[in-house]
Parts: sequence; structure tokens; C-alpha cells
Amino acid sequence: VRIECIAVGTELLTTQRVDTNSVWLAERLGELGLEFHRKTVVGDQRADLKALCAEALDRSEVILCTGGLGPTFDDFTKEVWAEVFDAPMAEDPASLASLLAFHASRGRTPSPSNFKQALIPVGAVVLPNPHGTAPGVLWRDPPGHPGTLVVLMPGVPREMKHMWASSVAPLLEGRGGRPMGTLRMVFGSTPESLLAERTQGLRARHGDLEWTILAGVPHVELLARSRDPRALEAALADCWAELGEDLARVGAGGVEDTVLECLVRRGETLAVAESMTGGQLAARITSVAGSSRVFLGGLTVYCAAAKETLAGVPPGLCASEGTVSGPVTLALARGARERLGAHWGLAVTGNAGPTEDREGPAPVGTCLVALAGPEGEGSTSFRLGGDRAEIQARGASWALDFLRRHLSPSFPEGGGML
Amino acid sequence: VRIECIAVGTELLTTQRVDTNSVWLAERLGELGLEFHRKTVVGDQRADLKALCAEALDRSEVILCTGGLGPTFDDFTKEVWAEVFDAPMAEDPASLASLLAFHASRGRTPSPSNFKQALIPVGAVVLPNPHGTAPGVLWRDPPGHPGTLVVLMPGVPREMKHMWASSVAPLLEGRGGRPMGTLRMVFGSTPESLLAERTQGLRARHGDLEWTILAGVPHVELLARSRDPRALEAALADCWAELGEDLARVGAGGVEDTVLECLVRRGETLAVAESMTGGQLAARITSVAGSSRVFLGGLTVYCAAAKETLAGVPPGLCASEGTVSGPVTLALARGARERLGAHWGLAVTGNAGPTEDREGPAPVGTCLVALAGPEGEGSTSFRLGGDRAEIQARGASWALDFLRRHLSPSFPEGGGML
Repeated sequence: VRIECIAVGTELLTTQRVDTNSVWLAERLGELGLEFHRKTVVGDQRADLKALCAEALDRSEVILCTGGLGPTFDDFTKEVWAEVFDAPMAEDPASLASLLAFHASRGRTPSPSNFKQALIPVGAVVLPNPHGTAPGVLWRDPPGHPGTLVVLMPGVPREMKHMWASSVAPLLEGRGGRPMGTLRMVFGSTPESLLAERTQGLRARHGDLEWTILAGVPHVELLARSRDPRALEAALADCWAELGEDLARVGAGGVEDTVLECLVRRGETLAVAESMTGGQLAARITSVAGSSRVFLGGLTVYCAAAKETLAGVPPGLCASEGTVSGPVTLALARGARERLGAHWGLAVTGNAGPTEDREGPAPVGTCLVALAGPEGEGSTSFRLGGDRAEIQARGASWALDFLRRHLSPSFPEGGGML
Repeated sequence: VRIECIAVGTELLTTQRVDTNSVWLAERLGELGLEFHRKTVVGDQRADLKALCAEALDRSEVILCTGGLGPTFDDFTKEVWAEVFDAPMAEDPASLASLLAFHASRGRTPSPSNFKQALIPVGAVVLPNPHGTAPGVLWRDPPGHPGTLVVLMPGVPREMKHMWASSVAPLLEGRGGRPMGTLRMVFGSTPESLLAERTQGLRARHGDLEWTILAGVPHVELLARSRDPRALEAALADCWAELGEDLARVGAGGVEDTVLECLVRRGETLAVAESMTGGQLAARITSVAGSSRVFLGGLTVYCAAAKETLAGVPPGLCASEGTVSGPVTLALARGARERLGAHWGLAVTGNAGPTEDREGPAPVGTCLVALAGPEGEGSTSFRLGGDRAEIQARGASWALDFLRRHLSPSFPEGGGML
């Protein structure tokens, strides 16, 4: 079923209002095994809307239209569709009664413009709106377009949502195939281009799935969509075989969730020390409810003195090695571990920019991670791309992922399909 | 000028990603006195995109297209437009050189798929993308469409924004009417409903302006829009007279920017200690470039032991008063100040949920803030709404705003109009 969404309203073309209705509708459609193939926002211009209606009828079997059903001069969605179908308008007694009742219940008298809301195109079905004054309108098999469904709903989200649930969703139930399932795989420290390259063969072998790589912040995500749950399971097994421990998480959540779940299972605790990420490493961990079970605390050491006082970095080490250096990062990991009495100490230093480091050879994007644990110590370094905010967010991800690889070099937590 | 926006990407038709680029572009157009007449989102389906390109050329003079310029199989915006204009693709030496340099700077070798990003339709102009690997593409007066401007930009917001500013905006300057100006006022610790109530008269008196209250996270914002700069200045003067020190910032940025600017001006330094906000208070401060000039460091004290060991909270105080209590919060502020040798110590404790505090009477949303400074100490407490993430983010804002009110109970920093 080819379904498209039309949102009407000049304010949706500016920054005053953003069309959130279509995002909500997309989620509901997904639950029915359906999806949009196009979304359009058009302003309060009759000619523009009328042209769009004609185009939509040519390419879509279901057209969901929101907005422009109000009482004012710039609300004419109903009238324009009536023109498209060459249908006259007639007063609907039920809509008139409900309009009068709505105003009476608020102690108001309807203005002349309000009455136009009770006018319905002849041949269309009225969709009641118990939460507002604008009834919805529906055409099944409109003139010249057999098999097509056109639905006009109010733009006010609350009214639209109720109308969808009570009058529209039932018409589409059973028309979708099996609901579309999404397999979400999260990568904490694998660049987008490397992931694209490493999954090329895999994606070709599972060519019946829809693949997407999202180079988001803080994670890179590989998404596979299919209506066949077994196809998704097979793809997941293959991804795991091919990508192995690069795969940080499957399903909802991020690297931080996997790390916390591993620590809970192992009965171990974590402390962090960070400079470049400036608190974000701790914030990512504590964004997870229940993190206090394993996370003891963090040190944001934003000057050399703090690295020595708070984290016990040996005096002079910052001066001799540079604050962004392997030895200082390792000393921070040890310091966090010892000062907080945790099983694991994780540290990150680097330069998030925007300016080069005056104190040493640390170009923008430099990121150093060190880990001190019950079985020893380790460290890594890399160069991150992006602006200051992206470098900080990615630095936190790479640090968490370095810990994750040590905690669980096996099938990641999460597990469930979205 | 009839301008339309096309966003390409199947993920933008689902709930995975929302098209925020077009909202940002609408704001930039408004500054040039221009506006969109239509916005469309289309999926990664060649035929759908091609049909849309042809439609758009028939109705619009300027077409701004974002997304689908990446290196992967599902990126084909450039190829489809080239087909529409019947233009072959040719390797662009400058794009190739910049592609190789981009990968070299990150110590990577481009994969075969990367090279397609250096292919440019013959007859089009390349728009450099110094922040990524996908160059933009521009046609002025493309074949069969004199007077038309077609611009293809990357979908990654940061890359798109830089490309807009450096290559696209200059082409549209002077083509619009009087630019729409926006006055942005930020409130760090004033709830939305109170702000709506307190500004009711003000908004009525300045009824010629477009007013919006954004109850965002972490800030509440009051926006006024007008094409008349003097009307905006008069509204700002009135807001300042009426709202006084509640106004945390005017223009771009947030409370954290005002706080840092105040500290730089006063030549003073800051240290923080936090439990409920879990690192976010430090992260908000260090998100600002140059924060290291005044921010010394932070303590994320996520267990009672850490509060004592790291921040010097007197032994037994957590047990006797509760970890979420005025005395412990004040001890944390003092501890951060003393341990880090800062002029100001700022602390926040509370309960971000989702479960009630088992250790004491701290319902979800409880937030305590304390400040220790050169002239004394102070504290405040309140109850925040929202889910865990919102409570943490708002808690950081309220803490920063408590400090701001002490640093600068006068006209806020920022000052410029957006």
C-alpha cells in the first residue's frame, strides 16, 4: 500500500511549528506493517494544496492529510479536496449539533466563521472529533479514484491522535503485511566508512533486507529492516560472525547500557577520570537508570593541578609528558580506580578543539583512552572527526567501547529486536 | 522567489530520524526575507526521487536538496539529478584531492565506494565540504530550466550548515524582502507556565510581534519574531524591565555561556560536585570552547563513600542527614571549592528517578543546589518535572542559573539579536 502524508500549514514551513504529527503517524503505521513513501508540508495557499492533492491521487493509495480544518480564513483543506472531487458542500446535522454542544459546554457562542466547520463535502464520510470543533473527513473510492482512501484530520496533535485511533486505524488494520521489524546494531568505535566496507558482502548476501547506516553522534548504527523476522535473525547471526566484537549492542540503547549490564553481571564497579570529554563520560553512564549499582563516581580533571590533586597523577608527569599523553592518561585511570576503590578505572584525555593544544603535540580530534583493571592495564589512541561537541561525544563512546571490549568480547547485551 | 526543500532518506520517513535540516534552513531563509513554499521528504527509492525532481523543477525557482550524497549504495541523489538533466558523471580532481586528504588526515585509506563521492555531474558546480567527504553540487540555469537554482547538500547537519553558510546563502542574499529577525531570550530556572503567565500582558502590548514559548530541555525560551528591528528592541527593553534577573541570556547560547563569560570578566574560577546530574553539570560547562580558562574540574560523587573521599563531606553526614539533603549539598559545594582551589564551588544533588529514593525523603524530581563562594554560601531546592533525562538536564540548568544570579544580577550576557 503506497501511503503518503500531507501536512497543511504555513507555520509548518517556518521555525514556529514543526510537523510532529507525521512522525507520530509513521510510528502507528509501522505497528500495522505499513509505511509512508512520502511526506509533504505545504503552506496555506489554495493553488499549492490543490496541485498537491492531484499529484498525491496519482501516486498513492492512501493519503493522510493533517491541518487546515479550523474555522479561520486560512483553513481550507476540506474545501480544496471537495473542489478536486467536484463535490458541493452541505451542512452536516450531526457535526452542527456537536459544534453547538462544544461551544455551549465552554459558555461560548459560535461565531459565523465557526459554522463552516459543519459543512461537509457531499459523498464524504464525517469523522467525529469529540476533542475539538473540526470534524474529520474521509473518502473511500472517491470519484475517479477507486481503491483510494483519503483522510483529512485536524492539525492539533491531540485531536488528530484520537481521531486516528477511533476512526482511521481500524480502516488500515489488516492492509499491511507483517509489521516491519528493525534490527538495530550499534558500533561504539567503528567509523562509518569502515563499517560500510566491512558489511558490503554481508548486505549483498542479505539483499532482501533494507539496510541503512546512520553515522550519528555518539554512535554509528547499522539498521536492517524486513517484514520477515527469520530474515532479520539470520542477518544478525551473520553480522555477529563477521563483525564480532566490534558490535557493541543489539536493540535499544548504547554502549553505556552494554557496559553497565556487563558490570552488573560480573559484580564489578567502575570509576572514571576525564579531561577532554569534560563530564560527558560520567553523564553517559549515569544517564542509565540504576547505574548507581556499579558506578561509583567520576573526576573531571580540567587543569593539570586537578589531575594531580584529585586523581593522584604523579607531580611533574603532566609537565614532562604533556597533559594529553599516554602516561598521564594511564595515571588518571589508575588514580580513578584507586581513589574510588573501584574494580575498573577508565580515563580519557585529548583535544576537542576548536584550537590546537598549546601545551603539546595534540591536534584537534586526538583522543587517548586508558583502562586500569583487576587483571592489568591497557590503553589506545585515535583521531576523531567532527566539531567540539561531536569529538566530545564520540570520545566518550570510544572510551566506553574500549572498556566494553575488555568486559565482554562475546555476543553483546541487548539482544532484542526493536 | 518560490523555494522548496527536498530531504532524501528512508529513515526520515520513519521514526528513526526526523528531518531537522529543513527547519534550520527555514530559519536561515527567514533571515534573508525568504521562505519555503513546500517541504518534501522522500525515501531512498530512485523512481520516487526522480519524479519529485521533475515536479519540483516545474513549480520552484530554488530547490534545496539535502541527503543522499554519502559513499554507500543507498546514496544516489547526485546520480538521479544528473539523470534528470541528462548529464554524465566525471571525476572532479579537486574533490578527489580533498577526499584523499580527508582520509589521509585520519590515517585511513579510502574504500572503493568512497571514490564515487568525487564523481560530479558534468555542467554542475562543486561546493566544497571541508567538514566531510561529500561535496555539494549546484546547478544555476540547468538545461531546460533557465532562472532555476538547484543545490544538493549533505544530510549531515554540521556539513550542510557549513556548506549553506559558505556557498549557498551568498547566492540568495538580496533576493528576499526585509529579513525576519528573531529575539531569543533564555530562562534557566523559570517554568514554562510561569513564564507564559508573567509575559501575557507584555505579549499583548507587543502584539505585532510573533511570540513563541519553547518549553525545551534544558532551557525554556521566549522567542519574538518581526521584520522590524526596532520593534524587537522595544520588546527586549520591556522584557528586561518586566522579567529582570530571571532572564539568563539573550541571543545564542545558554546559561552556561553567561556563567562562563561572567567568570572570565571577574577573573574567577569554578569547580563543581554533582550526584543527580551525574557529570552533566561539568559537561554543560565544558561544552563551551575556552571553558578551561575558568573551569578547574568536577567531581561526580555517585555513592556516599565518594562524597566523603573525593569531596570531603564529613564522615557520617550522609548517614545522618541523607545523601540528598541541604547539609550534604552544601558540604559538596565547599569540598569542590576547597579541593580544587576555586573561587566558586557549585553542587547539585537530587533524585532523577525513575524510582523513589530508598535512603530518604527525596521524591523523583527533587533537586538541591548549593553554592560556596568568596563572599559566603547559599542554597536552594525545588522540584523538577519530566523523565530521568529531562530532570538531569533541567537540574544542571537550575544549578547553573543559581550561580548566574549570584555572579550577575544585571542585564545578561549575550546581548546580540539572532
